[in-house]
Amino acid sequence: MSKSQFGVIGLGVMGKSLSLNIAEKGFKLSVYNRSEGEEANVVKDFLNQNTAFNNISGHTSIDSFIASLETPRKILMMIKAGSVVDAVIKQLEPYLNADDILIDGGNSHYLDTKNRYEALQKKGIHFIGCGISGGEEGARKGPSMMPGGNIHSYSLVAPILEKISARDKNNKACCCFIANNGAGHFVKMIHNGVEYSEMQLLAELYAIMSLTMSNEDISKVFSNWNKGDLSSYLLEITANILTKKEGNTYIVDTILDKAGNKGTGSWSSKTALEIGIPTTMMTSAVFARYLSSFKEKRVQLSQHFTKENRTPDIPNIKDLENAYRFARIINHQQGFDVINEAAKAYNWTINLSELARIWTNGCIIRSELMQQVSELFKNQTNLFDNIDIINQLKSLEPYIEEVIKSAISNRVPLDTFWSSYNYWVSMTSAKLPANIIQAQRDYFGAHTYQKIDAPLSQFFHTNW
Amino acid sequence: MSKSQFGVIGLGVMGKSLSLNIAEKGFKLSVYNRSEGEEANVVKDFLNQNTAFNNISGHTSIDSFIASLETPRKILMMIKAGSVVDAVIKQLEPYLNADDILIDGGNSHYLDTKNRYEALQKKGIHFIGCGISGGEEGARKGPSMMPGGNIHSYSLVAPILEKISARDKNNKACCCFIANNGAGHFVKMIHNGVEYSEMQLLAELYAIMSLTMSNEDISKVFSNWNKGDLSSYLLEITANILTKKEGNTYIVDTILDKAGNKGTGSWSSKTALEIGIPTTMMTSAVFARYLSSFKEKRVQLSQHFTKENRTPDIPNIKDLENAYRFARIINHQQGFDVINEAAKAYNWTINLSELARIWTNGCIIRSELMQQVSELFKNQTNLFDNIDIINQLKSLEPYIEEVIKSAISNRVPLDTFWSSYNYWVSMTSAKLPANIIQAQRDYFGAHTYQKIDAPLSQFFHTNW
Repeated sequence: MSKSQFGVIGLGVMGKSLSLNIAEKGFKLSVYNRSEGEEANVVKDFLNQNTAFNNISGHTSIDSFIASLETPRKILMMIKAGSVVDAVIKQLEPYLNADDILIDGGNSHYLDTKNRYEALQKKGIHFIGCGISGGEEGARKGPSMMPGGNIHSYSLVAPILEKISARDKNNKACCCFIANNGAGHFVKMIHNGVEYSEMQLLAELYAIMSLTMSNEDISKVFSNWNKGDLSSYLLEITANILTKKEGNTYIVDTILDKAGNKGTGSWSSKTALEIGIPTTMMTSAVFARYLSSFKEKRVQLSQHFTKENRTPDIPNIKDLENAYRFARIINHQQGFDVINEAAKAYNWTINLSELARIWTNGCIIRSELMQQVSELFKNQTNLFDNIDIINQLKSLEPYIEEVIKSAISNRVPLDTFWSSYNYWVSMTSAKLPANIIQAQRDYFGAHTYQKIDAPLSQFFHTNW
Repeated sequence: MSKSQFGVIGLGVMGKSLSLNIAEKGFKLSVYNRSEGEEANVVKDFLNQNTAFNNISGHTSIDSFIASLETPRKILMMIKAGSVVDAVIKQLEPYLNADDILIDGGNSHYLDTKNRYEALQKKGIHFIGCGISGGEEGARKGPSMMPGGNIHSYSLVAPILEKISARDKNNKACCCFIANNGAGHFVKMIHNGVEYSEMQLLAELYAIMSLTMSNEDISKVFSNWNKGDLSSYLLEITANILTKKEGNTYIVDTILDKAGNKGTGSWSSKTALEIGIPTTMMTSAVFARYLSSFKEKRVQLSQHFTKENRTPDIPNIKDLENAYRFARIINHQQGFDVINEAAKAYNWTINLSELARIWTNGCIIRSELMQQVSELFKNQTNLFDNIDIINQLKSLEPYIEEVIKSAISNRVPLDTFWSSYNYWVSMTSAKLPANIIQAQRDYFGAHTYQKIDAPLSQFFHTNW
C-alpha cells in the first residue's frame, strides 16, 4: 500500500474543509483526529460522509497516522491555537525525524510560532507557521495561504499548498513564502486587523445610512459600489446580509448588537503599540466591538437622551462613497506599515507586493483595492510615497469631513472613519503640538528635549 | 552603633530624592549603590553633598549594606525596571531572611511584580511593588505612593511610607495599601495612562489656540482655568511652560515636536485591549506621540498642503473650556474603569475612592477633579452611575461638538478630544451597528450570533 503524501491533524470545520480540498486536488492524504469523548466518531463520520474520495485514510492513533505518511513527512495541524498546539507538538515529537515538516495552520500568535520554530529547528524538524484565511468556504475551495518558516521546507510543501490555494487574476496561487519563523502568522494577524477595520467601516456606514434608509436601499447602494473600484468580498457579503429575510423579518434587524472577537484584532493593536506604529483604525475597530459589548449599560444611559429633536442630516451617497474610499486606503496603509516595521524588527524580508497579491483572492479582505495596492508596492513600500495616492486622498478629504460633521449632528459614533481622517491630517501636518508634551515631560521628569534649531544628537533640559 | 531602620538601593534621581526625604523625616537610613565604572563615586558624592543629614550611612557592598539594617529588613529598590530588578533580587536573596521586606519603587510591569511577589513569598520574603509618582520634586518633598503586596508587610513599612508621602487636603498621607501582588504597579501604570491623555488634551488645546493666539494669551487662559474646578498640576505647569523664555525666545517654540515615551502609556493601552475595556483616550494619546515621531515624513507630506486658503475658525474660549471639562471626566472614567475590571480579573480588592484620594496630591495627575472623583467613588464604582455626572456631560456635549467641528475646519488633529466624545456617544447609544459585525462574522466564519428577541443563552447561525 503506498504511503500518503500529506497528513492533516484535526478535523474541525477548517481541518475538514482543507482535507477535502487537498483530496480533491488528487493528493493521497491521511487524516487524524483524537477519538476521546465527544470526538469518538469524528474520523469515521468524516470518511462516511466523503466516500467519493478514495485517497483519504483515517486514523485515530498517532502511531498509524505517522506510519501512513511518506518521508519526509508533511503534516498540517488544524487545531485550536494556544497550549493545545504545544501539547500536540509534544505528542508528535517522538515520532518525527529530521527533515519532517510540521505546519501549524491555525491562528497562533507569531511569537509562539517563532519560539516553536526555533525549538524544533534545533532538532532538524522544520516548522511552518501558516496563516490561512477564507473561512470554511475558502478552506474548501481555495484559501489565501501565508506560510512562514524557512524557504527550504516551504519548497517541499509548495506543490501541495499552491495547488489547494485560491488563484489570483493571472491564475497564480494565492500562496507564497512570507519570511522566516513567525512571519506567516504575523501577516495573518495583521490581515485580521485590517479586516476588523473594513468590517467596522461598513457597520458605521450602515449606522448613518439606516437613520433614513431601508435595509434594501442600503444594500442597493453597497451592491452598486461593489461594481467598481470599491469592490470587495466584505462589501459584497454586507450587501447580501442586508436583504436576507426569515419570513417577513430582515435577519439583521434581529441580531443583537454586541460584537464578539477572537483576539487577533486585539493582538494586532497590541503589536502595533509595541513597535510604535499608529494603527488608529484597527484599534478603533477593536474598541468599537468592546463598546458594543456594554449593551445593558448603553441602554440604561441612552434613556437620558432622545434623538427626536434632531433632524437627521444625512450626508449624500457620494459623500459616503468617497469617505469610504478614503478610509480604506488609509486602513491598508496602516496595515502594511505595521508589517513593514515588524519586518525590520524581526529581520524578515517580506515582499509587500507579493503579500498583497496573495490577498487578492481567497481571503476575507480580498478586494479591487488590494489588487491596486499589489501593483503600487512593486515600486514603493509606503502608499504615501505615491503621488497619485496623495492626490487621491487630498481630493477625497472634503467628503470625509462632511461625513464626520454629519455624524456629529446625528450623534452617530463613527470612530473608524474618524481615525482614518485624523491619521491623514496628522501625517500631513508639518507641525504637531508634541513640543508641549516634550516640555511637560522635561518639566516634571527631566526627560530632556530636542530643539528645532539644534542637531538632533543634542538633548536639552530647562530649569522650568 | 544602632542599625538603620530602612535601606535604599540605587541612587539615581529618584533614589537620591527619596533618600533625602526619608532622612529628613528622621529615619535612620542606609543607602547602597554599586561602585563600578561611571558609578564609582555615586555614594561618596551623595554623602558629601548631603552632610546636613547625619542619619544616612553609605555602602558600596551588599554585605555591609545588609549588615547595617535592623531586622526584619526594609529595603527599597529604586532601579531601572526590567531585567535589572531580577538581577538585583538574585544578588540580595542569599542575604535575606523570612519576614524581610523588599520594595520595588520603579515602574515595573505589574505582571513581573506579580511573578516576583509569588516567587519571593514562597521563601517567606515579602515583596512590595510600589508605584511612586511625582517626579524628582515629588520624591523629595512627598510623592503619591501606591504599594501592593500583602497587607501584613505593608503594615510594617506603613509608618515610613506614609511619613514620606504627600498629604491630601485633610492632611492624610497620599499612600495606602492598594491590593495584593501586582496591584500597586498596575494602578501606577494606569495613572500614567491617564497622565498621557491629560497631557495630550493640553497639547491639542494648544494646537488649536495657537492658530490665532500668542503663547502669553494661551497661558493666561490656562492660568485662569486653573483657579477653578479645572485646576490641576498639569494645567499649571503648562501655563508656566508657555511663558518661559530664553533671551527673547519662548522655549516652547524651539522644542522639536517629536514626543518620546517610556512605555507605560503603551502598557496601559495593551492591558486595556487584553481585558476588553475601551480606553480610547489614552490609546489616542499614545498614538499621537507615535504620529509625532514621523516628523520627516510629516514635513515632506505637508508640502502638498497649504493652510493659507483656510480662514481660522477658532472656537471661543468657553467652548474650549467646556470641551476640556468634558474630556477630562471621560478620561478619568476610562482610567478607573480599567482598574475596576482588572481588579475583578486579578481578584484585587481596590478601594477606588481611596485610590483617587492618594492621587489628589503628590502625583502628576493631581487635580481638583480627582478630589471630586474621590468623593463620588464613596458611593459608586462607575462615574456613569452618578446622575450629576451624566447631566454635566450632557450639558457639555454641545461644546465639544463645536470644538471638533472647528478642528476639522482648521485641519488640526484633535484625536484625544474626539476619543472622549466618541466614547460618550457610544456608551449612551442604545443601538450600535455591531449587529452588522456579528452578521459578517457569521457569514464568513460561522461564528453564530445572539438575537434581540431570544434568550442570550441561544446562539444562531444563518445559511446566508
